[in-house]
Amino acid sequence: MLTGKHTWIFQNRPVILSTGVSGGPFEAGGKLAEDFDILHDDLWMGKDTYEKAHQFLLEEAVQKALEKQQMQKEEIQFFLAGDLINQITPSSFAAAANGIPYLGLFGACSTSMEGLALSAFIVNYSGADYLITGASSHNAAVEKQFRYPTEYGGQKPPTAQWTVTGAGAALVAKAGKDGAAYPCITSATIGKVVDMGLSDPFNMGGAMAPAAADTIIKHLKDIGQDPDYYDLIVTGDLGKIGRKTAFEYMKKQGLDLQEEKFQDCGLMIYKEDQEVFSGASGAGCSATVFYGHLLKRMKQGEFKRILVVATGALLSPLSFQQGQSIPCIAHAVSVEYGTNA
Amino acid sequence: MLTGKHTWIFQNRPVILSTGVSGGPFEAGGKLAEDFDILHDDLWMGKDTYEKAHQFLLEEAVQKALEKQQMQKEEIQFFLAGDLINQITPSSFAAAANGIPYLGLFGACSTSMEGLALSAFIVNYSGADYLITGASSHNAAVEKQFRYPTEYGGQKPPTAQWTVTGAGAALVAKAGKDGAAYPCITSATIGKVVDMGLSDPFNMGGAMAPAAADTIIKHLKDIGQDPDYYDLIVTGDLGKIGRKTAFEYMKKQGLDLQEEKFQDCGLMIYKEDQEVFSGASGAGCSATVFYGHLLKRMKQGEFKRILVVATGALLSPLSFQQGQSIPCIAHAVSVEYGTNA
Repeated sequence: MLTGKHTWIFQNRPVILSTGVSGGPFEAGGKLAEDFDILHDDLWMGKDTYEKAHQFLLEEAVQKALEKQQMQKEEIQFFLAGDLINQITPSSFAAAANGIPYLGLFGACSTSMEGLALSAFIVNYSGADYLITGASSHNAAVEKQFRYPTEYGGQKPPTAQWTVTGAGAALVAKAGKDGAAYPCITSATIGKVVDMGLSDPFNMGGAMAPAAADTIIKHLKDIGQDPDYYDLIVTGDLGKIGRKTAFEYMKKQGLDLQEEKFQDCGLMIYKEDQEVFSGASGAGCSATVFYGHLLKRMKQGEFKRILVVATGALLSPLSFQQGQSIPCIAHAVSVEYGTNA
Repeated sequence: MLTGKHTWIFQNRPVILSTGVSGGPFEAGGKLAEDFDILHDDLWMGKDTYEKAHQFLLEEAVQKALEKQQMQKEEIQFFLAGDLINQITPSSFAAAANGIPYLGLFGACSTSMEGLALSAFIVNYSGADYLITGASSHNAAVEKQFRYPTEYGGQKPPTAQWTVTGAGAALVAKAGKDGAAYPCITSATIGKVVDMGLSDPFNMGGAMAPAAADTIIKHLKDIGQDPDYYDLIVTGDLGKIGRKTAFEYMKKQGLDLQEEKFQDCGLMIYKEDQEVFSGASGAGCSATVFYGHLLKRMKQGEFKRILVVATGALLSPLSFQQGQSIPCIAHAVSVEYGTNA
């Protein structure tokens, strides 16, 4: 790798062997309900705290990914996960429950691709035969921590986004079955933190847009390709406003990007009549939409190559209260459907 | 790598080119003051919040590591960092300030070695020519979040530990200057989360001890060595009580470990007359003691091989309030002084 480059190329094309995707009641009423493996009709999920329900979503997603391959957790060497809750306790408690050696990550809503990028790197270089990476969020647990308990019924501005209740986990391996096609991870770009001085936690899509644009531009430059190399470039959760901002910014930077090939996970998951303001967000947003919905469409032949650009707003309630702006980041992972030979 | 193993062997022996270590006033009065590059006589460090001071400590440590190699931040490809503050904002804001592509980590006080293990893996396989990893904590920022604002003067039990104000950063590279000796990273073991059901946040050393023991036993088994392979096995911050618990546990498991070769960073940093109860802790504890003090002793020829086992208690104030136990983890990195050929 040359100094100045921030993209890893995975020559061995690690595969996503299987995924597990779980969601909550609002997701069950959403546009992509069919693409979830597990859906709950209650936010509590039989637990006595929202945080335990949050943890449970991730545990279920991991279990589902294992089941699809008829594998046991003992066969998995590492578990890379993170979420938005203070000290990422849902992920760490899930790691305590499954007993898989654990690397805790924090990238806010960019965690899904931070985890997939690191997983692909580790597997590509034989640091593991099998590992699992996941990201998750729970609407009530996250809203209460970052904004207000949902029971307060606080009003939100139209720039606000709706935190997804859901978890997505991917089982990454060096190779699949001979001759079979899988989603193969071909490269990943690690983003830098971009802070444009925005400080409105009800407009995180707007704050994250420059970070997404920066990472996409960097990725294409590092791999020496034009945007049309991809059938789809999909951001994590910029929402309506952030997506528009990012698109215009990239156009201005000379990127020849077609609007219909630039989509956002936060705009896919819910129906038009579900009032989610500017769109969905949360660490579980890109994780559920990509590992569930988009990989399904890949397998159906709709997309050959996707660039998934998960975006994260790295604020805390305290940093906001202390008057600091919102630093943002985006990590991009390139996935190609095919054999890994 | 074989399934069942959780240790990475780094054939290319990535080197720690340089380190930067910063600390606060209590550390300036401590036993290892001479081994810090920068010491502040005031906890605020000229900032208007403790969190900004926390961030500043990490920024300084990174800058110092760069200066020692006369390198610019633009030459560094990735920055892997984490801390104990909600949403690891000190690390993320430091990443915003230095502009280096960033991977946010959360492993509580195990973050130092989580970062060094991943950094070594990435550099070993040419995923970067140069990267920086760091971990940090700030007594007042961390105490206020996890326990009580220090201004309250709350009483503590003898099992409690004192959070270090300090940051340690390491510049990791594929190779050093021809023929010169460096601390070389030879292997790393990723720990699993161990939860023994303990729930007293004033006795985290005791809670972390089984995780430390588990990772040390696993490491030695994976590399096929006895404990005397190392001149020193040093844990992150078990403190007096945790160290004793871990030592006895390993003895019971049949590990032939000599007591004087099993030390703890949390017992090294302060003087006997500094009242720190069971010892020091915090993500900055193992980072400052290892990157400052221990590497200096290595260079002086006192140790040829060290195993650094950073331990983390993965609780949050909320998980404790909700009656949950304290899941713990430990990651081990093996460092050998010599040339990297």
